[in-house]
Amino acid sequence: MGTADFARVITGTAFHTPARDRLEVLEDHAFVLDSTGTITQMLPAGDARRTELVEAARSRGVLEELPKGSFLIPGLVDLHIHAPQWPQLGKALDAPLEVWLHKYTFPMEARFADTAFAAEVYDEMVATLLAHGTTTAVYFGSVEVEPNLVLAEACLRHGQRALIGKVAMDDPDNCPPYYRDDSAQAGLDATRRFITELRQMAGEDPLVLPVVTPRFIPSCSDELLAGLGALAKELDCHVQTHCSESDWEVGHVAARLGQTDCEALSGHGLLTERTVLAHSNFITEDDMGLLCAHGSAVAHCPMSNAYFANAVFPLRQALERGVKVGLGTDISGGFSPSLFDAARHALMASRHAASGTDPSLPPEARGPGSRPLSTVETFWLATASGGAALDLPIGQFAPGYRFDALAIEANAPGSGFRHYAALDAPEDCFEKLVLTADRGAIARIWVDGTPRLD
Amino acid sequence: MGTADFARVITGTAFHTPARDRLEVLEDHAFVLDSTGTITQMLPAGDARRTELVEAARSRGVLEELPKGSFLIPGLVDLHIHAPQWPQLGKALDAPLEVWLHKYTFPMEARFADTAFAAEVYDEMVATLLAHGTTTAVYFGSVEVEPNLVLAEACLRHGQRALIGKVAMDDPDNCPPYYRDDSAQAGLDATRRFITELRQMAGEDPLVLPVVTPRFIPSCSDELLAGLGALAKELDCHVQTHCSESDWEVGHVAARLGQTDCEALSGHGLLTERTVLAHSNFITEDDMGLLCAHGSAVAHCPMSNAYFANAVFPLRQALERGVKVGLGTDISGGFSPSLFDAARHALMASRHAASGTDPSLPPEARGPGSRPLSTVETFWLATASGGAALDLPIGQFAPGYRFDALAIEANAPGSGFRHYAALDAPEDCFEKLVLTADRGAIARIWVDGTPRLD
Ligand SMILES: [Zn+2]
Ligand SMILES: [Zn+2]
Repeated sequence: MGTADFARVITGTAFHTPARDRLEVLEDHAFVLDSTGTITQMLPAGDARRTELVEAARSRGVLEELPKGSFLIPGLVDLHIHAPQWPQLGKALDAPLEVWLHKYTFPMEARFADTAFAAEVYDEMVATLLAHGTTTAVYFGSVEVEPNLVLAEACLRHGQRALIGKVAMDDPDNCPPYYRDDSAQAGLDATRRFITELRQMAGEDPLVLPVVTPRFIPSCSDELLAGLGALAKELDCHVQTHCSESDWEVGHVAARLGQTDCEALSGHGLLTERTVLAHSNFITEDDMGLLCAHGSAVAHCPMSNAYFANAVFPLRQALERGVKVGLGTDISGGFSPSLFDAARHALMASRHAASGTDPSLPPEARGPGSRPLSTVETFWLATASGGAALDLPIGQFAPGYRFDALAIEANAPGSGFRHYAALDAPEDCFEKLVLTADRGAIARIWVDGTPRLD
Repeated sequence: MGTADFARVITGTAFHTPARDRLEVLEDHAFVLDSTGTITQMLPAGDARRTELVEAARSRGVLEELPKGSFLIPGLVDLHIHAPQWPQLGKALDAPLEVWLHKYTFPMEARFADTAFAAEVYDEMVATLLAHGTTTAVYFGSVEVEPNLVLAEACLRHGQRALIGKVAMDDPDNCPPYYRDDSAQAGLDATRRFITELRQMAGEDPLVLPVVTPRFIPSCSDELLAGLGALAKELDCHVQTHCSESDWEVGHVAARLGQTDCEALSGHGLLTERTVLAHSNFITEDDMGLLCAHGSAVAHCPMSNAYFANAVFPLRQALERGVKVGLGTDISGGFSPSLFDAARHALMASRHAASGTDPSLPPEARGPGSRPLSTVETFWLATASGGAALDLPIGQFAPGYRFDALAIEANAPGSGFRHYAALDAPEDCFEKLVLTADRGAIARIWVDGTPRLD
């Protein structure tokens, strides 16, 4: 590569996890990006080509040098957010799923038919999530098309990578009259229109992508589910839905269809290698086999699960089976906007599930003693594995990947992330970052190589 | 009360929990403080005496008026922090307790014999914890006397209410030669000297109090434990130690003494109504009876428990028995400096323990189905109940209580705490505050009625 062929050079020490149990510390590397924000080269300190490149970038004003005590990490990938539940974040958590939907959530989501309200809320939401380090967000929108386009505009304006779905839900027995698609056909038509208009808005090399989004089986007719599966194939789209979330939900699907969620979704063509299934707490061994066969991914949402699933997702088992898994906040089923928080709650949930919780039992009877998440695995779920779940080149630092990244600053005045140069090896610093980094530690944010929120 | 008899007036809307399951919203109250920072009156908006008082305070320059959209809450009470583990926060969590102590923790704590190092670390730590809203901190110090006095100076300088213990540990079989009291008598002499010097330093109406602090039974001889019990009585001190934390620890005490931790501590005079016992995960029904009889409290540390206890503290059972319980971060056994985080992890742990975690079991076999923590109870643990655990007049807003408080600002640019005036009732706002308020939302901090960190 000649020195003329780059658009930007960023230098600094980076952490990433190219595989589940592998931390790589890239000490003082130069990341060379092309005009799309794709990494073309990664040059360590001694590399012969580096000096020339760095000087060329400096003279062209496209060099960013991270100071010592700052660390690059891949941007966080939040696989599951309900955009129109944002005003509800941190409240209304006192009811089980089937009550919560009708009592709080459908009325809240229905408010977003007012696009002025949607514009105001979404503008602030996207900025806040980006500020928390979420460079890629996978959003459930609301039923109407327009507010979801308003959300797409907000993501494009702020420069957040986003996958957005118009929620499809048509079953009159399980959806309220004020908030549903009028029929399966109406839901399909609206979904098609949303996908078409979003793609027009996002243009070439789109930062924002459409997602085919049946809410979950209980709120969708078979006709709608089958039609959405066909639409995803025809229009070559990502898919998202909820899967096997709670005892009630699993029982509902079993009673109606005599199948598991995964079996039914597979039958309707909704399991693809660009499908993300929220929760999936109650999937069976066979369901895991289906997910592996289709290359579909799970969005593990530990905060929300503690409220609505009454069980912990069998994460170790899924990882050992080879199921793709990433993390989600499940705003507002989960109460934090931060994927760092989701990651830490995943760690805690994993430890509770592994050891058991009841001190009156002897240790061998208390829990299965499975291996809990390591810190490296936790970070991998929040970054590289989230990128793989979406089948997008994000979540790690490697040639061909987009430079979606955060600069995490140690000892920033507004943060709890502390680094003692004399006491902390790079691996210690990584551990501290995973467990204590917060919004106050995020000094800089790039999506597609472009600085955001500046 | 005449208008001349006050030192400061603060007006605003406040949330507090004067009882376990009772949220009180004090809309637009004026809090009248005397020169010690004690609340003398709380006047609602319509009160006849209020106008005169507010105007008098304004003319004397001692009026603080909280803007709309900000909320007063009692300052957070962190019942369990290891000050000399601060540089280790967020790392070294890959070993069980008995290994972790010798491999990481004793060497780290021993560094604080260097008082210059201690001064630098403690200054930053106290400022950071205060900034996270911890207005009262209960600290385990290190073995040597001097660094603990350095910690006390930092607390006095920053204005953080603190209870500090010189850690006593003398058992040569369980304490390393480089980090222990030379003998039981040496441990007792050093503890006495620490208490005396701290009290001299803190003066009248002290903001910083000494705590008799045997590390835990496995590191202390019977002679040291008995002597410390006598010293606590003679010098009229708070007591803190670790209690029934892990299977290993419980087994160790049973093998050595044929007793539970609580029985042994009670026998040595270490259970008083100003005793705080960290963890206590494995206490028995009889132990709970002992704690109630003595009025001793538990510092529940959910983050640390997930790493070191392999079980969840039986919180509901303890609360129903009437055991006093508050919350601790257990820095650095826990990974966050924030008591808000500790509270949220307590909520999650409580839900996991109540519902169980294993999705392959039917709901009725999965967990005991006990009642998990409510949001109100969670807040009460972090404030009023923490104050009661210490037998200090803090943690709620009432005449006779010290004004230790935080002003929490909704929609602050650096915070995830969002408030929609048109959508959120005061109770919604409280829920959101408990679940999402963070350091960025803390606009102002008072201890003893005096603004801190300004
Ligand atoms: Zn969801
Ligand atoms: Zn401890």
